[in-house]
Amino acid sequence: MADRKTEEWAAEEQTPNLRLSLRVKEVLHREKTPYQEMAVYDTFECGRTLFLDGTVQTTEADEFTYHEALVHVPLFAHPDPRRVLIVGGGDGGPVREVLKHPSVEEVHLVEIDRRVFEVARQYLPFNNSWYGTDPRAKVMFLDGIKYVSDLTGQIAAGKAKPYDVAIVDSTDPVGPAVGLFTSNFYAAVRRVLSPDGLMVAQSESPFVHRHVIKRVVDAMSEAWPVCRLYLGPMPTYPSGYWSYTIGSNGGDPSHPARPVPAGFQARLYTSEWHRAAFALPPFVQELMPGDAARSAGR
Amino acid sequence: MADRKTEEWAAEEQTPNLRLSLRVKEVLHREKTPYQEMAVYDTFECGRTLFLDGTVQTTEADEFTYHEALVHVPLFAHPDPRRVLIVGGGDGGPVREVLKHPSVEEVHLVEIDRRVFEVARQYLPFNNSWYGTDPRAKVMFLDGIKYVSDLTGQIAAGKAKPYDVAIVDSTDPVGPAVGLFTSNFYAAVRRVLSPDGLMVAQSESPFVHRHVIKRVVDAMSEAWPVCRLYLGPMPTYPSGYWSYTIGSNGGDPSHPARPVPAGFQARLYTSEWHRAAFALPPFVQELMPGDAARSAGR
Repeated sequence: MADRKTEEWAAEEQTPNLRLSLRVKEVLHREKTPYQEMAVYDTFECGRTLFLDGTVQTTEADEFTYHEALVHVPLFAHPDPRRVLIVGGGDGGPVREVLKHPSVEEVHLVEIDRRVFEVARQYLPFNNSWYGTDPRAKVMFLDGIKYVSDLTGQIAAGKAKPYDVAIVDSTDPVGPAVGLFTSNFYAAVRRVLSPDGLMVAQSESPFVHRHVIKRVVDAMSEAWPVCRLYLGPMPTYPSGYWSYTIGSNGGDPSHPARPVPAGFQARLYTSEWHRAAFALPPFVQELMPGDAARSAGR
Repeated sequence: MADRKTEEWAAEEQTPNLRLSLRVKEVLHREKTPYQEMAVYDTFECGRTLFLDGTVQTTEADEFTYHEALVHVPLFAHPDPRRVLIVGGGDGGPVREVLKHPSVEEVHLVEIDRRVFEVARQYLPFNNSWYGTDPRAKVMFLDGIKYVSDLTGQIAAGKAKPYDVAIVDSTDPVGPAVGLFTSNFYAAVRRVLSPDGLMVAQSESPFVHRHVIKRVVDAMSEAWPVCRLYLGPMPTYPSGYWSYTIGSNGGDPSHPARPVPAGFQARLYTSEWHRAAFALPPFVQELMPGDAARSAGR
């Protein structure tokens, strides 16, 4: 086959024994930032794809399922979200989804790695069309743990306003994100939210990261009166199925607090999907501590 | 690294541009049958794994999600399933799930490729413990299309009893399975079922096989008065998320017709999960023809 070319593949070792590979059309960018190794590819299967430390963060083909699940469940679970905090999420996708909610007046993105945001803005424009065009969005390049910690003091002193919803869009619990998976952090986030506020954190795969889900659910249950887990598809993340852990002060986050407005642009989210995402199969239910399992709609 | 060994990986080209690879502990079996190429591996991530024509059929780690979704949704949607037909499913997993239903008196497995069944019985014992121990199960090595076609005549002549539920557990719509994805076949299946009978067919991934879902849903809607689609996780199949298409004569298959009996062993299925699986996101809803979409709970 004289016309056969060398193929390039970008592979993620999802575990030491499981690998997902995407055929590469073009290598768009490679860089070592102060925090992580970054690469952007154009792939045949999934379009533009961002890797951080060797793991897929965002692909053009399926980022919508992750970002819609992460953002719209807590935002529709809140009756009137006006101020939203995003920790991590430097690729810009979560801000795009938050800004679809007309009630939102301010969304603050706190990303530790400025280069993730800058490179995503250059190569993943589908995530970042809001930048410079929607004045409700503000981007800060700070350590999210320090930002939240400092803010607790300012709010206690009446010098800053609390948020209504906090979204933790972290990388995996290694490297820069490890402190984002602790009950101390979840408790601090709770102190920067209003009394009817709620928070969500991505919490990995119910098939291959079961220990992480247990740890997140335990930590969230320590810090918040109500802790619930929900699930959604995410093809390019390990196992193709992903979990999200949500904390609230008493409200039931498995039920939307308000209908989807007319004309709302969503490819994953509906009110019915919101409720369905909390129907945990027994193999996931068994990861929940006793109290959380009992409240989880068995 | 003097102690580094050569690694063996079993890879599926899920599409020409997307590949899933499992690290292999041991190659257990390889064979070319009259119908397909077959391989069984022991893998580090997923345990025993059966490949047919280069595609993952069953892994010890996640076969439960596929088999429970495929079997328990139609069986619990039926008020009193006594006679069940399985076309395909030679690895034995669907029979195991059907036999969990105490109402079932007979389950007939019609598999075209005797070697799939024999090899699965040898290497995938978690699928086949029922063989030779549960007299309700009968295995036939026949072409499912011909079996159903012949049976329509016998039932019309009052010489055979109809089934209550038919389950089509096919490989992908290439090779031996292609005839199982047509409205002619679905209509023939309808003629071998009782008036309150229903059928289900696996219908591939809502992310990477969207044309297949459209084809199956259109064909099922031609052959059956009610056609619904439901979804579930399946990590080692392309995109990790899978669809199932169900036809009924009028009953609503999205609602269980009876509760889960006490002591029922399930890792995926609950009544709540059954209903949730029909909550189609808009990107899947758009694959449904007008009538099916309207009946699909918007």
